[in-house]
Amino acid sequence: MKKHILIVPGDGIGQEVTAVGKKVLDKIAAKFGHEFTYDSALIGHVAIEATGNPLPEETLQKMKSSDAVLFGAVGHPKYDNDPTAKVRPEQGLLKMRKELGLYANLRPIKLFDELLSASSIKPEILKGADILFFRELTGDIYFGEKGRKNNGDTAFDMAEYSRYEVERIARKAFEAAMTRKKKLCSVDKANVLETSRLWREVVQKVALEYPEVEVEHQFVDATAMLLIKDPCRFDVVVTANLFGDILTDEASQIAGSMGMLASASIGDGTGVYEPIHGSAHDITGKGVANPLASILSAALLLDISFGLKAESDALINAVDKVLKAGFRTRDIADSQTASNMVLGTEAMGEQVLNNI
Amino acid sequence: MKKHILIVPGDGIGQEVTAVGKKVLDKIAAKFGHEFTYDSALIGHVAIEATGNPLPEETLQKMKSSDAVLFGAVGHPKYDNDPTAKVRPEQGLLKMRKELGLYANLRPIKLFDELLSASSIKPEILKGADILFFRELTGDIYFGEKGRKNNGDTAFDMAEYSRYEVERIARKAFEAAMTRKKKLCSVDKANVLETSRLWREVVQKVALEYPEVEVEHQFVDATAMLLIKDPCRFDVVVTANLFGDILTDEASQIAGSMGMLASASIGDGTGVYEPIHGSAHDITGKGVANPLASILSAALLLDISFGLKAESDALINAVDKVLKAGFRTRDIADSQTASNMVLGTEAMGEQVLNNI
Ligand SMILES: CC(C)[C@H](C(=O)O)[C@@H](O)C(=O)O
Ligand SMILES: CC(C)[C@H](C(=O)O)[C@@H](O)C(=O)O
Repeated sequence: MKKHILIVPGDGIGQEVTAVGKKVLDKIAAKFGHEFTYDSALIGHVAIEATGNPLPEETLQKMKSSDAVLFGAVGHPKYDNDPTAKVRPEQGLLKMRKELGLYANLRPIKLFDELLSASSIKPEILKGADILFFRELTGDIYFGEKGRKNNGDTAFDMAEYSRYEVERIARKAFEAAMTRKKKLCSVDKANVLETSRLWREVVQKVALEYPEVEVEHQFVDATAMLLIKDPCRFDVVVTANLFGDILTDEASQIAGSMGMLASASIGDGTGVYEPIHGSAHDITGKGVANPLASILSAALLLDISFGLKAESDALINAVDKVLKAGFRTRDIADSQTASNMVLGTEAMGEQVLNNI
Repeated sequence: MKKHILIVPGDGIGQEVTAVGKKVLDKIAAKFGHEFTYDSALIGHVAIEATGNPLPEETLQKMKSSDAVLFGAVGHPKYDNDPTAKVRPEQGLLKMRKELGLYANLRPIKLFDELLSASSIKPEILKGADILFFRELTGDIYFGEKGRKNNGDTAFDMAEYSRYEVERIARKAFEAAMTRKKKLCSVDKANVLETSRLWREVVQKVALEYPEVEVEHQFVDATAMLLIKDPCRFDVVVTANLFGDILTDEASQIAGSMGMLASASIGDGTGVYEPIHGSAHDITGKGVANPLASILSAALLLDISFGLKAESDALINAVDKVLKAGFRTRDIADSQTASNMVLGTEAMGEQVLNNI
């Protein structure tokens, strides 16, 4: 198979982890006889520094003409601490999602058995947890009108959803539920928000097409509690952009560490694959970032964008073997991990490469 | 001291738990020589059934003329499953908050030592956790314009904050931090939302008045993760209405169970004290609801609205003794709890009464 992959490292540890992600893709190509070509492009803070624009037109064009994008992270503390900044790295990320029509963000939360003790949650609560989140990614309060009024004394953000937007993400979630345990939990705040009431109405309607799927509706506050109390009760979870942002970061604790979680953003065109961890400037350049989320993002890319299931599984198995052998990055090490088994970003990447 | 207390049970288990809350207030009055008089009023689903209005004018007037309100819960599955219902129990709750100017919702999250093993989080992660949340309660997307457009095909909700609204809640949180560990974490989503950027700006400004307080700003997604990963890093947390709703429900897992958590809503006039658990219709009428959150709400009422610190402590100590004696309600029992130590709502209330 011939495919063209765009590497978009972005900011902070995005650089370090996508470098490893690319290496494992290379190895897979060699091993399975595919031809992957690569290009790279700027986004976020590094793009602002180089061009003044968080999503340069060139990057967008390259994305549109690639078969898939392996993405790092965006963000920089400089902007976070300056609430009045007009140009921000995140604008690049949001514009990319909108321009590529990436309306469905899939975040699988599954614990590798070896990491059962790495979580702050009790092993007996975690055992068997396996959740697939569908986060809507191009609507909600992220993309509505926002600004100031009353001489700048009042700020506003508009949340919006159309039936069409809810329907297409709901359908993707139901389709996935059909291939899994046939359970779907739709999360909203329908007791307060009108967008949530529309959300619930539409999900109830789509549910009629999938009579085999057991559907429940939960409020977002209750869900935030239940995810920790009883993660095993969930199978597929579908929710709006903002709620999905919050709940999936929280759910990272089910998988032991944010450093383990990959995501796929798909929709109308090129798919984008990225870790759910952010740019993590506190550890940037130290060579300690966990590359497994980027590697697992590459696995999602192979599976979802290229339909290469065996290749994707080969990657996941390699990660599993490395964990079974006892190797850990700092974020997933525990008090029982011998210090010589704690690896940096590159060394962990090498271990995975050796196991493909 | 002479005080008039309004009991507003509301829906579901609100009835059962406030009955116990009232009894402990009575006992405190008798023991410490105070004179508490009581009245009661309707809100939520029960008010809709009786009057068609989720917050009858009579209830509102009684609230305004009381010295404090002991509140139960509102909500009913009937409305949750009908996204098109025009009159809803929660409208009563939101209107009460707005009309009474209850802009600050205090939610203390503290684990009773005896419950260390009741949580799904590991005891070693929880030990020492003690967080005081300040949730803004009369602004944000809860109270902005909401509705439908495009023939009902698009729903919208407007989030809004003014400088004034952020400043007053921030100031309350900083004042509290000064009496505690002098650490404050402000939670927002300033990388995406304009309301959050205003929020951050104002908190940064108020911080200048409290140079002794160590301030950090966290994004809501990261906070949802950190609360589980490392709850002990937090002291005072201040955040907007919607984020506070989600994060405090999540944080209930730090305290072992939602059934343990009390809250105080304060502002311009009468204070309202309520459990953070909701109406819980799945267990309503079964006599198994945990009354401790209502009892601890009564303790907050005594302390905050009446300035009766010794009386408040007497209540908290009584709860502590009952837990030390090994008594549990179902929600906080674990596999080690003998079945004869698992009590229902009333029996648990009796135990606390006996220990005052
Ligand atoms: C960086 C930020 C804008 C982004 C989001 O909120 O979507 C991130 O948290 C994510 O989850 O991808
Ligand atoms: C019932 C609901 C409207 C309410 C809220 O969201 O504020 C509840 O969850 C709470 O936290 O008091």
